Amino acid sequence: MTEFFKDIPQITYEGPGSENEFAFKHYNPEELVMGKRMEDHLRFAVAYWHSFAYEGGDPFGGRTFDRPWFGEGMEKARMKADVAFEMFDILQAPFFCFHDLDVRPEGATFAESKRNLEEIVDIFAEKMESSKTRLLWGTANLFTHRRFMAGSGTNPDPDVFAYSAATIKSCMDATIKLNGANYVLWGGREGYETLLNTDLTREADQAAKMLSMVVDYKHKMGWDGTILIEPKPQEPSKHQYDFDVATVYGFLKRYGLENEVKVNIEQGHAILAGHSFEHELALAGSLGILGSIDMNRNDYQSGWDTDQFPNSVSEVMLAYYEVLKAGGFSSGGTNFDARIRRQSLDPEDLILGHVGAMDICARGLKAAAAMLEDGKLESARAERYADWDKPANAEMLENGDLASIQDRVLTEGINPEPRSGRQERLENLVNSYL
Amino acid sequence: MTEFFKDIPQITYEGPGSENEFAFKHYNPEELVMGKRMEDHLRFAVAYWHSFAYEGGDPFGGRTFDRPWFGEGMEKARMKADVAFEMFDILQAPFFCFHDLDVRPEGATFAESKRNLEEIVDIFAEKMESSKTRLLWGTANLFTHRRFMAGSGTNPDPDVFAYSAATIKSCMDATIKLNGANYVLWGGREGYETLLNTDLTREADQAAKMLSMVVDYKHKMGWDGTILIEPKPQEPSKHQYDFDVATVYGFLKRYGLENEVKVNIEQGHAILAGHSFEHELALAGSLGILGSIDMNRNDYQSGWDTDQFPNSVSEVMLAYYEVLKAGGFSSGGTNFDARIRRQSLDPEDLILGHVGAMDICARGLKAAAAMLEDGKLESARAERYADWDKPANAEMLENGDLASIQDRVLTEGINPEPRSGRQERLENLVNSYL
Amino acid sequence: MTEFFKDIPQITYEGPGSENEFAFKHYNPEELVMGKRMEDHLRFAVAYWHSFAYEGGDPFGGRTFDRPWFGEGMEKARMKADVAFEMFDILQAPFFCFHDLDVRPEGATFAESKRNLEEIVDIFAEKMESSKTRLLWGTANLFTHRRFMAGSGTNPDPDVFAYSAATIKSCMDATIKLNGANYVLWGGREGYETLLNTDLTREADQAAKMLSMVVDYKHKMGWDGTILIEPKPQEPSKHQYDFDVATVYGFLKRYGLENEVKVNIEQGHAILAGHSFEHELALAGSLGILGSIDMNRNDYQSGWDTDQFPNSVSEVMLAYYEVLKAGGFSSGGTNFDARIRRQSLDPEDLILGHVGAMDICARGLKAAAAMLEDGKLESARAERYADWDKPANAEMLENGDLASIQDRVLTEGINPEPRSGRQERLENLVNSYL
Amino acid sequence: MTEFFKDIPQITYEGPGSENEFAFKHYNPEELVMGKRMEDHLRFAVAYWHSFAYEGGDPFGGRTFDRPWFGEGMEKARMKADVAFEMFDILQAPFFCFHDLDVRPEGATFAESKRNLEEIVDIFAEKMESSKTRLLWGTANLFTHRRFMAGSGTNPDPDVFAYSAATIKSCMDATIKLNGANYVLWGGREGYETLLNTDLTREADQAAKMLSMVVDYKHKMGWDGTILIEPKPQEPSKHQYDFDVATVYGFLKRYGLENEVKVNIEQGHAILAGHSFEHELALAGSLGILGSIDMNRNDYQSGWDTDQFPNSVSEVMLAYYEVLKAGGFSSGGTNFDARIRRQSLDPEDLILGHVGAMDICARGLKAAAAMLEDGKLESARAERYADWDKPANAEMLENGDLASIQDRVLTEGINPEPRSGRQERLENLVNSYL
Ligand SMILES: [Co+2]
Ligand SMILES: [Co+2]
Ligand SMILES: [Co+2]
Ligand SMILES: [Co+2]
Ligand SMILES: [Co+2]
Ligand SMILES: [Co+2]
Ligand SMILES: [Co+2]
Ligand SMILES: [Co+2]
Repeated sequence: MTEFFKDIPQITYEGPGSENEFAFKHYNPEELVMGKRMEDHLRFAVAYWHSFAYEGGDPFGGRTFDRPWFGEGMEKARMKADVAFEMFDILQAPFFCFHDLDVRPEGATFAESKRNLEEIVDIFAEKMESSKTRLLWGTANLFTHRRFMAGSGTNPDPDVFAYSAATIKSCMDATIKLNGANYVLWGGREGYETLLNTDLTREADQAAKMLSMVVDYKHKMGWDGTILIEPKPQEPSKHQYDFDVATVYGFLKRYGLENEVKVNIEQGHAILAGHSFEHELALAGSLGILGSIDMNRNDYQSGWDTDQFPNSVSEVMLAYYEVLKAGGFSSGGTNFDARIRRQSLDPEDLILGHVGAMDICARGLKAAAAMLEDGKLESARAERYADWDKPANAEMLENGDLASIQDRVLTEGINPEPRSGRQERLENLVNSYL
Repeated sequence: MTEFFKDIPQITYEGPGSENEFAFKHYNPEELVMGKRMEDHLRFAVAYWHSFAYEGGDPFGGRTFDRPWFGEGMEKARMKADVAFEMFDILQAPFFCFHDLDVRPEGATFAESKRNLEEIVDIFAEKMESSKTRLLWGTANLFTHRRFMAGSGTNPDPDVFAYSAATIKSCMDATIKLNGANYVLWGGREGYETLLNTDLTREADQAAKMLSMVVDYKHKMGWDGTILIEPKPQEPSKHQYDFDVATVYGFLKRYGLENEVKVNIEQGHAILAGHSFEHELALAGSLGILGSIDMNRNDYQSGWDTDQFPNSVSEVMLAYYEVLKAGGFSSGGTNFDARIRRQSLDPEDLILGHVGAMDICARGLKAAAAMLEDGKLESARAERYADWDKPANAEMLENGDLASIQDRVLTEGINPEPRSGRQERLENLVNSYL
Repeated sequence: MTEFFKDIPQITYEGPGSENEFAFKHYNPEELVMGKRMEDHLRFAVAYWHSFAYEGGDPFGGRTFDRPWFGEGMEKARMKADVAFEMFDILQAPFFCFHDLDVRPEGATFAESKRNLEEIVDIFAEKMESSKTRLLWGTANLFTHRRFMAGSGTNPDPDVFAYSAATIKSCMDATIKLNGANYVLWGGREGYETLLNTDLTREADQAAKMLSMVVDYKHKMGWDGTILIEPKPQEPSKHQYDFDVATVYGFLKRYGLENEVKVNIEQGHAILAGHSFEHELALAGSLGILGSIDMNRNDYQSGWDTDQFPNSVSEVMLAYYEVLKAGGFSSGGTNFDARIRRQSLDPEDLILGHVGAMDICARGLKAAAAMLEDGKLESARAERYADWDKPANAEMLENGDLASIQDRVLTEGINPEPRSGRQERLENLVNSYL
Repeated sequence: MTEFFKDIPQITYEGPGSENEFAFKHYNPEELVMGKRMEDHLRFAVAYWHSFAYEGGDPFGGRTFDRPWFGEGMEKARMKADVAFEMFDILQAPFFCFHDLDVRPEGATFAESKRNLEEIVDIFAEKMESSKTRLLWGTANLFTHRRFMAGSGTNPDPDVFAYSAATIKSCMDATIKLNGANYVLWGGREGYETLLNTDLTREADQAAKMLSMVVDYKHKMGWDGTILIEPKPQEPSKHQYDFDVATVYGFLKRYGLENEVKVNIEQGHAILAGHSFEHELALAGSLGILGSIDMNRNDYQSGWDTDQFPNSVSEVMLAYYEVLKAGGFSSGGTNFDARIRRQSLDPEDLILGHVGAMDICARGLKAAAAMLEDGKLESARAERYADWDKPANAEMLENGDLASIQDRVLTEGINPEPRSGRQERLENLVNSYL
């Protein structure tokens, strides 16, 4: 046991009446929602990076947090792992996620970095034997080190491509060894700072090659996890190629990978791309590529990614509604790609950021499930399109052509009268489940 | 001759020294740029709607313009056509563009609307016999009338789908009859106001069916014009399906239409989608779907589409650079989807809005051509990726896999050193052509 | 009785368990909150313009609503008034608000417009004798007619200034006659479309003169209502002078009007200005100029004013918390400057838009009151600044100077250690009241 | 001489025909513009922080630059100063600007930090004896160290207020000693991350006290430099108090400091606040508080401060036009608060970023001067308001009241006819000077 969380108890469910800050009021892992345990619906994951590697910096200021494990070397990395698993235990977290750089010291060479990672993975594996916490996904940090400044797979320098491929293999190996459920690629440097020095065609081909190699390696290893791309439109790059769900889908189609790769959708990234979170989820569901979510919000007044814990039940409810409509998570889950604010210095803040978020998600899930089970919203939606089920209309959609349809409009004097979209009534309905 | 432009002379090229407001200082149609006449490069088009149908309204105010052709009925429509062709003549405009609703009165029935359009098309055809102005593209207005409030092709009501298909056929017929070079679809109502009442899957299938019918009709008619989609992310709808170039590309790929349809890209729409204009152009060029452009800017401080005439040479230059790199326009051109401000009440304003824009475009084109012919920018770009042409690297891109690449990184101790992206030097270079 | 709402019952409170769409589940006018009737806290007002004058248009489409009172002439205006007061009655609305243009036909001359208004005001006065609904505020529409296209008080044309002043007098007279509680000025055209033709100094002086005349007229008439400015940063103008609360405050100070005028703050306008609604409210409270609110939201993905009914309890709660902290409304209230979506065609939509909003506000008010009464949030806030109450620190704030403070820092070796801002804990606390 | 810039020559003016990257093509210090040397108009300053202290980091990546002076200790600080003055010499920079933290190592105590600063100031003073480069402004970094995470003057902890005051005194002393022309305050942490833990009233009073002490100290020291506030709406804080020019003006008026303090306006900050740069400049000019400028642009597609060197002549021209209209700089100047991109690794990039920017500014200044001297724009502006100069209208503005004006409108039948705002014509005019 480290000292870091020494005065903080394990968090348990005490119900809505509890005034205990260190308790769940809404997240009850065992409670059944639509016949499934809440824990199995939500599949919460703690992000190793924000929780243990983030030092409190921002573009105008440095480290604010004071953590005993900050610093170089394997000993610090081991202490960090100890604290991490203590927190997983305090939170009863079913999952965690990590990048290689979060968990191991950077080596002087690729070989050393690889060995460092392997050593930590062994430690994780041992800890996981006595922990309930599993790995939701692993990923490679291909954006922090200066070698990646102009991209990883899309770098103009083939050596960076090679270095990135080698790193991804290490991280996939780690994910497979730890029985991870998914492997994620986030392309923060796959994009450009200026079009003036960029060849879009080359870089797209490079990105596709890298992704194809990832898919091939998955199959070669006989691993049944899911490969996920996490879209984000910008930041750190001025423009990023995996802009949003629709863009990623077009990329997958272009290179024939649409049945091999799904998306990990983050609320904050949806917002930066000019969408609502529920839009991105609904679109991915419609396209059959909804994989997993990063349930962290942006501040609506900030033009950058703030990665805050969710705190709006009504927004979270709409998100889980789309997840439930898509059939719920299979390999995916609810990762908190969230960091406490840089002024939240205390160990309690780190715990309570997660506790509040888990409770918000539980409330949102229950409201979403109630709305789906009640069926009124889906009935209203279906009713709106009901005329398309009439044989003549289904036939028009199947076999119509402009000329014959125009003939019919002329002959029948079709002059459609609009009908109310009933937005306010539906919004009232949604609020009735909250 | 109408009285409207009675004191305004035909605009001719007088060169940069001229102080005549009513002259081109930079746009010289006959001047050769990269061996092609400037007029044939730029292929300017006047938008009928903004120039003759827009009344000066905005969301908080009504008509400000006082035009003798405003009002109902065919006589007004004929006067509008007279004025339009007078303006085309004053500007020596090589092209114009129109929606059905811009040019003909709405009928009480579809049949009447169709007849009205046909009558106007006959008038246009006659005028075009003695005019140099040709049709760049036609299109259907499927967004103004209340019947389209919930979409045209994507409407929940199949009768609206049918009415839209019939309307598109009329407009394609008009375009073909007038020897238009392209036919455009802009989906301002193809999207949603609220996800709560929307079925994304159904609506995508409906949109694809409509587009397929358009493509089929083109082929059936043996017409060799180009079908273009104009992307826009939002406005009027909260979310529009043709969000940006990448989204449209994904849609085309999803339904196998990527070889049949290109894009008409507008600067203002690029901005609303979070992109630069040159990004959208470069991406479309890279994807092989760059068709035509709407060269009108947004105000960077306004969160809606302002459709202003272009006035920044440096921005326009970067746009034409991408057009030239993609081989220049074939069927496409430079449409001004621009309106004078609602306070610009005078006939002179309408003329001078176009004159200024044409001069800005001419300056931009010449600078872009100089930059392309000089070759320094393309050399710098190519040099940045030069290592990919080495056989070992080309081979890696062709046949590499993660495991063998990792082996090579380990064996060779690959540890890439980053190189400068030289952004400021390239920006200085660009400015040297202005 | 008109036929318009003929099948819609009066809305009454039925409590949270009710499944009746046409009932309040949370808004119970008589319920005491912090010792005051809920109705007296919230002071709801219906906006005449959005409810009865808005035709469903947007920048790309025309009228969608089909209302028997649309059209010209006093008879239509009377029918509109009948329907309006029927709706006030259905909703038990304590207040309404109007512009002159909403309620009377525009005359051919100022004199005729004035007479039309006076006639309608007489009708209103008569209706109000048998209605519970009072006037929250009146205002002049100085933005729709083309004469105001370049501003009203800030117009370059002194005749428009005069016309505007005359109009404001009419509207103040109407407000006073109807015992309105406030008079509002919203400057949608007080700003500019381009700096190139604008004289900021002149226009500020003109605006100040107009406002001073309004204040003088209030005093001259012995009226005890409140003069309110409604800030908005842009739209319709590219830049508006009453950008946000801080800007309005600076303007009032510049011209010595800060004790005469307060602000009417709208959520959507706060968002457009880059603020949260609660920021604008808290700032106005801190500056002593919080007057009234327009409780309508913007869509976070739309860059323009969407004027939608509120539907987020958590946002509304934070707004009322600032109102309650500032002592609650005195002359002000909660106006819904909201319109149903243009696809919401039915009379039911108009009623239910208001019902849902009133319920959301009631939930928000109760949560805000609970939080304020509980006191935990205010205790945490006070505790954070507690060291400033120590005499030495209070003295430093009162009489300190740089040199003596530096001496003390050197002498005492002051080296402050930061303390947690506890944001996540406070956010969890806030959510516990919802 | 250090080795850093060893192959880079001094930059001299070679004229527009030069193809030498390392020459000015437009910035000719001696050239007269409106009768004043270009150097004396522009008063360029190099920012010490971006040029020498920025390491290439961003929120997702660390140091990319490889500079021999990076690291701790006074020796590194001395080497940094050597390189800095070498660059000033290469660029013939008339001015530089610095924060304490840019130039000296942070000490373990305030006393040590103070001594370190004094030692560096002595070095600077010595270097300046043989350099043409003077100090445009000094400032204190009150945002990077964790002690300032919750504000400096506005901190809830009085000890941080004291520490900040002590630091400001040190920096003012340094500025005075080096004969700086101005002293700047930028409040990156003077704002809040969450309203929930913030007391706006207290924090405003604290900020005003700090500013008052700065003004008092200036007078006490008999220093005739200018105190400047640099507005910025957000970043790093979610909300910053010095939001924009209008907000700063209101703050100054509130505390009676409007005659003591001016503003330093940055293009990027104007953009983040929803304004154009020229708006902020024109407004400050109108309010009499235009002090100095930070001439660095934001990327229009990035929602954060990118601090890039200017590269648009047309934008820069509009900025200098406002500066010239306000009478030009007195103590202020043109600071480049700009950093080369993190991929611009080479010493050449650092030099050429400045060279390009200086040339862009020179082109903009010359175009602005031509436009001002020509007078057509100002004539058009004046003509638009000319009717206000008529005695009756001047009288109305001076002594009018609502009632008498309404009488006149009725009597005279005033019914104003709008006139064209001529925006496109004016935009064409502006472009004719480029
Ligand atoms: Co994120
Ligand atoms: Co994420
Ligand atoms: Co547009
Ligand atoms: Co367009
Ligand atoms: Co509004
Ligand atoms: Co309002
Ligand atoms: Co900046
Ligand atoms: Co700055």
